[in-house]
Amino acid sequence: MKRDETMVNAYVPGQGHLPPEDQALIARRQRLLGPAYRLFYETPVHLVRGDGVWLYDAHGKAYLDCYNNVASLGHCHPHVIAATARQAGIYASHTRYLNEVVLDCAEKLLSHFPPELSNVMFTCTGSEANDLALRIAFAQTGGTGVIVTQNAYHGVTHTVAGLSPSLGSGVALGQHVRTIPAPDAAHLTGDLGQAFAAEVQKAIDDLQRHGIKPAVLIVDTVFSSDGVFADPAGFLKPAAEAIRQAGGLFIADEVQPGFGRTGSHWWGFQRHGLIPDMVSLGKPMGNGYPVAALVLRPEVLAEFGAKGRYFNTFGGNAVAAATAIAVMEVIEQENLLQNAATVGAHMAEGLRALAQRHAALGPLRATGLFFGQDITRGGEPDAKEAARIVNALRDAGVLISATGPKGHVLKIRPPLILQKAEADIFLDKLDQVL
Amino acid sequence: MKRDETMVNAYVPGQGHLPPEDQALIARRQRLLGPAYRLFYETPVHLVRGDGVWLYDAHGKAYLDCYNNVASLGHCHPHVIAATARQAGIYASHTRYLNEVVLDCAEKLLSHFPPELSNVMFTCTGSEANDLALRIAFAQTGGTGVIVTQNAYHGVTHTVAGLSPSLGSGVALGQHVRTIPAPDAAHLTGDLGQAFAAEVQKAIDDLQRHGIKPAVLIVDTVFSSDGVFADPAGFLKPAAEAIRQAGGLFIADEVQPGFGRTGSHWWGFQRHGLIPDMVSLGKPMGNGYPVAALVLRPEVLAEFGAKGRYFNTFGGNAVAAATAIAVMEVIEQENLLQNAATVGAHMAEGLRALAQRHAALGPLRATGLFFGQDITRGGEPDAKEAARIVNALRDAGVLISATGPKGHVLKIRPPLILQKAEADIFLDKLDQVL
Repeated sequence: MKRDETMVNAYVPGQGHLPPEDQALIARRQRLLGPAYRLFYETPVHLVRGDGVWLYDAHGKAYLDCYNNVASLGHCHPHVIAATARQAGIYASHTRYLNEVVLDCAEKLLSHFPPELSNVMFTCTGSEANDLALRIAFAQTGGTGVIVTQNAYHGVTHTVAGLSPSLGSGVALGQHVRTIPAPDAAHLTGDLGQAFAAEVQKAIDDLQRHGIKPAVLIVDTVFSSDGVFADPAGFLKPAAEAIRQAGGLFIADEVQPGFGRTGSHWWGFQRHGLIPDMVSLGKPMGNGYPVAALVLRPEVLAEFGAKGRYFNTFGGNAVAAATAIAVMEVIEQENLLQNAATVGAHMAEGLRALAQRHAALGPLRATGLFFGQDITRGGEPDAKEAARIVNALRDAGVLISATGPKGHVLKIRPPLILQKAEADIFLDKLDQVL
Repeated sequence: MKRDETMVNAYVPGQGHLPPEDQALIARRQRLLGPAYRLFYETPVHLVRGDGVWLYDAHGKAYLDCYNNVASLGHCHPHVIAATARQAGIYASHTRYLNEVVLDCAEKLLSHFPPELSNVMFTCTGSEANDLALRIAFAQTGGTGVIVTQNAYHGVTHTVAGLSPSLGSGVALGQHVRTIPAPDAAHLTGDLGQAFAAEVQKAIDDLQRHGIKPAVLIVDTVFSSDGVFADPAGFLKPAAEAIRQAGGLFIADEVQPGFGRTGSHWWGFQRHGLIPDMVSLGKPMGNGYPVAALVLRPEVLAEFGAKGRYFNTFGGNAVAAATAIAVMEVIEQENLLQNAATVGAHMAEGLRALAQRHAALGPLRATGLFFGQDITRGGEPDAKEAARIVNALRDAGVLISATGPKGHVLKIRPPLILQKAEADIFLDKLDQVL
């Protein structure tokens, strides 16, 4: 079957065996939304309802959601919906008037960060948060050089798309952007932290050789789109030191790992014993409501704050703030970090047990409820088999996807509320599919 | 009183006479949000509740909102809140699964556009919509040159902030950006359309002289931040033709004028008898919920669609789509275009009558419920008096602001549900203040 060159697990129009009503829906979608949108799966899923860890299609078929990291508290969480609706009925306006809700949200958010990170700025999307981080870093450092990993994804604005090589060769990287290999212990030799920092240093040297001042090293702290690289905890520290020694800033992109996904901590960078200059947040922050943020050391904001102002009409509006507060309350009250750690360990153990019986299951990289499971054949990446597994699981009622530069890494990210019995459903279905 | 150099009507910390509780709130805000945020007014307003055209402060004082164009249907509109809450309880996920709500929204939205504009892409903010428009234009034209007006504002991403001169001299314009004078009949001579197109042509020539291929002319179709320039209807057409003849595209930024603000039409460009290549939408689209969009001619999307994919996690999610549908339903069912036209004409008439008695009221530019009222002294711009009026109205319980490169234009944009009796309150208070 033909593949979409620009995206793993994309539906290729005209292929597959779809029921007539879905064909009609796809045609309507194509007519209205145009050619740039993509659907998941060889046979796209037509979803109409969500509830906890379950999603339901138009025929009532249930899918265990082991993929979507936005509805991290489960789909349609009642506490969050109620908070959104309550605040929407009271006051929804922006940050140019005094209002306490956005400050309550900021305070609660910052209470989960080390004290050095004491400012927060609100946006609507992770893309906007990363884009703002770049603007601030350019102003602060006077530099324009940016270092990212080879299959990084940091968002869709013109600037951050230009530092997101995973969008494919059709989207040009910025001329001041340099890519480095992912921190993959299987390919970098020696101490991983030192080896990764050496790659950062090479990129710094190359930028400087071209007369470009290094401004930023930005990484997703679990390297989601590179294939999930989380261990050994601590390996990121020398890389962050390298960019700082070159006068640049270290930005932790926590859009995917943040808000407890890793189980052990609220934020992925905390596993590495370092404190970033800026931390971008997004996806799970509103459990579906568009709210995102950038958390910073105040000292990196000095130049940007002196030169101009920041206003994002919807960013930090009172409803967004109330919603994010409710999300944090649920994470705290339902002990979701603990749950992610416990159920995550159970799931990882199950995957390793399956690997004893199924040769296709290669190395597993996992932290909390975030898994990168290599699919290999004779030790080599097997993207075709990964795609088969992803699509067969979809047919079996389990949603995951694939990632990595070679497309052979199963990307598994269930909601943080997942229970062991539900993890076992996933493991059973995977076993059957294999 | 000291002014903020980067923003008209900004609160300058440490000035004014604030009650202790507001001083504490401002200090807390400064500590949490940092130095880049700005408040309105010499004495900031601490708002806690909104209802229709009214906002209420912490002491219960009511303010007639004649400024905020997000809550265009009135604050906390019950039909919109109910639609958001209903959909949030059913399904909230994104555009990589089939779902009908986003298609229903797209279809309803496009039904209000001429048939040539038949594709829509969803974002969360107007900034993201303009940023996406630029990405698409760069891909389609192969050019990078951008033309904007001298005090334009198109958003806050790195790319669109670089073409928003109204952000102040601390925010550098992009090196491929050229500015042209606003279409101000008081300063351009001869036929306004031809004169404005001649300015566009000069910018095209300058770009080409520097080896830069023109890609885009982007304008807010009522030139909000330039001081509101709406008449004579039709003047934009030659400018759009000029950029197209040079191989570029014409983008109508409808974030402020769109969704009926001008009274006569859904979109500001329609007053000018032209069809843009792309139309960006934002602020009032969700009446407070973060939803925005880009509407396009399919032919301009060909290159972008062929080279890559577009995905915005929250853009076009089912709740955003349901909310935007509800907003359009209210505009239709409450006949808000008609109301904007009728009450707008009444308000304009009232302003002109006041100008007979108050010398400070200079030229008025108005369309529907969007007014730019010059404040002058001896025919010269009087920003100081404009600021006095804005702040005195705030004290009198009416919210407006000021704009324009010289800060002397009162910016008046009440919700589209404003009634004549409420317009009269505004006119009475303005009369008293003057």
